[in-house]
Amino acid sequence: MTRDLWLDDFRPGQRFTTGGATLSEAQIMAFAFEWDPQPFHIDKPAAAQSPYGGIIASGFHTLLVAFRLVLQERIFNAASMGSPGMEEIRWRLPVRPDDTLRVEGEVLEVRPSASRPDRGTARIAYTVVNQHGEAVMTFTVTHILKRAAAGRSD
Amino acid sequence: MTRDLWLDDFRPGQRFTTGGATLSEAQIMAFAFEWDPQPFHIDKPAAAQSPYGGIIASGFHTLLVAFRLVLQERIFNAASMGSPGMEEIRWRLPVRPDDTLRVEGEVLEVRPSASRPDRGTARIAYTVVNQHGEAVMTFTVTHILKRAAAGRSD
Repeated sequence: MTRDLWLDDFRPGQRFTTGGATLSEAQIMAFAFEWDPQPFHIDKPAAAQSPYGGIIASGFHTLLVAFRLVLQERIFNAASMGSPGMEEIRWRLPVRPDDTLRVEGEVLEVRPSASRPDRGTARIAYTVVNQHGEAVMTFTVTHILKRAAAGRSD
Repeated sequence: MTRDLWLDDFRPGQRFTTGGATLSEAQIMAFAFEWDPQPFHIDKPAAAQSPYGGIIASGFHTLLVAFRLVLQERIFNAASMGSPGMEEIRWRLPVRPDDTLRVEGEVLEVRPSASRPDRGTARIAYTVVNQHGEAVMTFTVTHILKRAAAGRSD
């Protein structure tokens, strides 16, 4: 058990890093076969002939692995009320079979809602880093977070 | 068989609409259990008590169904070389069990690469619409597209 975090626990400049996850070739191809069946994600000979020179992970796969790693940290566990959106999704380098990804988060902005006193938004910049320390993907999420536990009303 | 499209076939203002897909409650909960296991996506009693009043689809599920529907149209089939990023992802309304989604695309901008004559980028604005005609999600993708079939060099 760890203490639950609420909107008011977040401050601009706070940083955190998630655990890692290794993406196997089989996982990369299975995900893409369902959601993003382009040749350079699912067809090894075609991928070898493509500009990528081999199978690369769907950018959506990288995004989802990153989000799942963030959720596993349980930082937004109790407070999360969803999200209105994301900004500036950038796929910067290919993710290849057996790459290990982890996510670095940095709080950019924390803003209590003007109209709804029980909640607010936190904007978090995420960088997905591979085992070589290279940033393979960056994106920013606006999280809607509860301000405090039930009973607290600051 | 349909004719393959290349970067030079795209013009700002062109529009297209995909086929539809109905998201079952089971699909919504199974996707979220793997990728976005927050209570309002996977836990029916908790979701009923949440501000959403019941299970809603993960926004990532909506995004992936939308992208898959776009790929199924095979508009980017031959020309696609991937994407450097997406902008302005907005989850505008909840997606609920048995909602049927389709996607409307509009070409915003087409730009041949200055440095690489074989390719360029097309920015496409996507709107995900439910069975009531409501826009549940919007996002913009920059697609990297080949300029022409091998042998053509215009």
